[in-house]
Amino acid sequence: MAEQHVVVVGGGFGGIETVRSLAGAPVRITIIDQRNHHLFQPLLYQVATAMLATSEIAWPIRHLFRNRPEVETLLATVRGVDSKKREVLLHDGHLVPYDTLVLATGATHAYFGHDEWEKFAPGLKNLEDATTIRRRMLVAFERAERETDPARRQAFLTFVIIGGGPTGVELAGAIAELAHVTLVKEFRNIDPHLTKVVLIEAAPRILLAFSEDLSAYAQKALERLGVEVRTGAPVTECADGYVVFGKEKLATATVLWAAGVKASPAAQWLNAPADRAGRVEVEPDLTVPDHPEIFVIGDTAAVLAPDGSPVPGIAPAAKQQGSYVATVIKARLAGRPEPGPFRYKHTGSLATIGKRAAVIDFGWIKLRGWLAWWIWCVAHIFFLIGTRNRIAVGLSWLWIYVTGHRSARLITQGQAREETSMISAPRPEKRRRH
Amino acid sequence: MAEQHVVVVGGGFGGIETVRSLAGAPVRITIIDQRNHHLFQPLLYQVATAMLATSEIAWPIRHLFRNRPEVETLLATVRGVDSKKREVLLHDGHLVPYDTLVLATGATHAYFGHDEWEKFAPGLKNLEDATTIRRRMLVAFERAERETDPARRQAFLTFVIIGGGPTGVELAGAIAELAHVTLVKEFRNIDPHLTKVVLIEAAPRILLAFSEDLSAYAQKALERLGVEVRTGAPVTECADGYVVFGKEKLATATVLWAAGVKASPAAQWLNAPADRAGRVEVEPDLTVPDHPEIFVIGDTAAVLAPDGSPVPGIAPAAKQQGSYVATVIKARLAGRPEPGPFRYKHTGSLATIGKRAAVIDFGWIKLRGWLAWWIWCVAHIFFLIGTRNRIAVGLSWLWIYVTGHRSARLITQGQAREETSMISAPRPEKRRRH
Repeated sequence: MAEQHVVVVGGGFGGIETVRSLAGAPVRITIIDQRNHHLFQPLLYQVATAMLATSEIAWPIRHLFRNRPEVETLLATVRGVDSKKREVLLHDGHLVPYDTLVLATGATHAYFGHDEWEKFAPGLKNLEDATTIRRRMLVAFERAERETDPARRQAFLTFVIIGGGPTGVELAGAIAELAHVTLVKEFRNIDPHLTKVVLIEAAPRILLAFSEDLSAYAQKALERLGVEVRTGAPVTECADGYVVFGKEKLATATVLWAAGVKASPAAQWLNAPADRAGRVEVEPDLTVPDHPEIFVIGDTAAVLAPDGSPVPGIAPAAKQQGSYVATVIKARLAGRPEPGPFRYKHTGSLATIGKRAAVIDFGWIKLRGWLAWWIWCVAHIFFLIGTRNRIAVGLSWLWIYVTGHRSARLITQGQAREETSMISAPRPEKRRRH
Repeated sequence: MAEQHVVVVGGGFGGIETVRSLAGAPVRITIIDQRNHHLFQPLLYQVATAMLATSEIAWPIRHLFRNRPEVETLLATVRGVDSKKREVLLHDGHLVPYDTLVLATGATHAYFGHDEWEKFAPGLKNLEDATTIRRRMLVAFERAERETDPARRQAFLTFVIIGGGPTGVELAGAIAELAHVTLVKEFRNIDPHLTKVVLIEAAPRILLAFSEDLSAYAQKALERLGVEVRTGAPVTECADGYVVFGKEKLATATVLWAAGVKASPAAQWLNAPADRAGRVEVEPDLTVPDHPEIFVIGDTAAVLAPDGSPVPGIAPAAKQQGSYVATVIKARLAGRPEPGPFRYKHTGSLATIGKRAAVIDFGWIKLRGWLAWWIWCVAHIFFLIGTRNRIAVGLSWLWIYVTGHRSARLITQGQAREETSMISAPRPEKRRRH
């Protein structure tokens, strides 16, 4: 009998953990991703805010499995699944047959029916998003430096983050520190202290996944950094040069989106039942109804925790699911009974708010302040893959901690003036000068 | 009397050195660059070959001068110079008046009248070039892994470098090591050892700036790494999927250009006399004829060394010129006689050929082999700006030296399949499969 062929689609936390946990199993594995690298998404906001280099939080997938000859890595985009013929369809028409399929294809930004907002308010999901946001922010400071009209200058110095979850909070804190610590002394015509960072959240408080006191602490810590926090204020319009929330219209050249996600189209490929965010409603063992050979995990799956609440879209949840799926596959191969249904164990919620402030909610204990911040740092270094990146990230953080200087402040890819049209608009009144 | 205003265009080695050497002079300085960063170009090939991260060899210009309140940094593209009104014209129509102007605008690739070759054979001058080359190379290996036709597969595994100067030699050595050391064990369908790296040089030998024995040694060292060196072979055609040189036509998906440079258009802006490469023919004190208030330095200037040979387009030459120009400006301001004409001092030529092999020609002494390689490493670390980057580059090199792993192997910016059309061509015979 030929070996079982397990196809894993997606090289995020769920997909990588599945392949890792299948080590030693008598299977042939193909892992497919549209990018050549696994990304440590929890630190992506630090690339966007010029704290880390792209290569410090990403690893070539095929490098991770170089010592696993039974694992083949494919750089390709999946376009569909033929669950009758058991084949995955790639962008170039190739078909990859499978015996068992694991879909771990993640999520993307959701603009709640306003996809036209995307070009004004980019989200943060991959390395290009991060370098795009980095470029827009740094360009906004450069434009402010050369702007003579006070209102336009203030708009260039106004940064709006939509969404008060961990990503929004971390972005807001990092931008405030960039302006108030790193960039000080570097400009001649503007005072970076005049930078306005506004964090907008539709719910009555930020960090909804945390307890109320931690969320109140986080808001105070943000305000100490100079961030304006606006809760209970749903955004009703994103456009060129401004954003409308509550009853307020705010002029700004830079809006970042950290508000919502929608699942990748796995449910459509499978014609499977999905929830409102597009996540596949899987069985208790993470398989697709009527397809025990297809698993869906991570941000693409709608799974309930033992307490009946939805499993959150965070790295530990995806990793637990990947590990669980590997156990099921191995049990089937060995002819053993399958383990019981997947049970999510919540290890805790973490968010950092600039230097020396963070909140941690382990459930049994809640932490905030500098101790939480140190735990946050150590935990993130620990979960990075590979000694090389642990040293590099540790060094980068130490450097920023001591000097306040951020080394990755590069404006690359695309001309400065090709950004949002508020930035690029020709200014006839000035042009008349020559 | 108002302070003198010195405008420096270009944040490369020449421009940065000019501003540095003007420290303490009673002048106001504006430095203009179309990028926000100074780039350590000698190590750019290491970004292209995934050895270093972009932020390890680039620094925000305004950060370099944060402690010099008299220095203003402008992110803008210069479109022309009005030498009568003494004004620099920017891309957005703004005019920057000057008392003294220093043009240090560098050079770009020259395709010897075949500009249509550029899209098939990108050159290496800035960070985007480096990440483009990195992406194309890594994608070529990925395509080879999925290719079933042996001839096409070999074309994906064939890398051609045109130009046998230091950049071409260093690129060829680094690509050969990438294939033969770093990528080994990572692919399942191809053997990276089958990678063919071909270095093409029109002259009878590579590294023309070095002595004949060093150039012979470099050729042998490259061949030991598996590079095919073809000298006396001018390229007559670059096209989609192949290159023609001498009487040979070679199928390849990746061609890199390291053959020729042409100066930036400073001579046209000034309507000044220029040589064939477009470099301004400056006076012995590096000023433009009839314009003692305009200096042109670095790769944009045609200058002769004391022995009558042209000053080479290398970093030490640009830095010497920047320092000299600052001395002239300071002498004028102090009412002292100007120093004598600029005299270039050649400090040496260096090139590295992979791990533990390099050639150094100091004139009075010639070195090759591992000692030269160590000197090359130490010299480059020394000339990097800033402790942070010295540590980071030192760490990256140490890591690669010990493990052979390169951390920056990221395919970013642009879909893999949007590359050269040989790579992106739809393959109808395969598409029929579904």
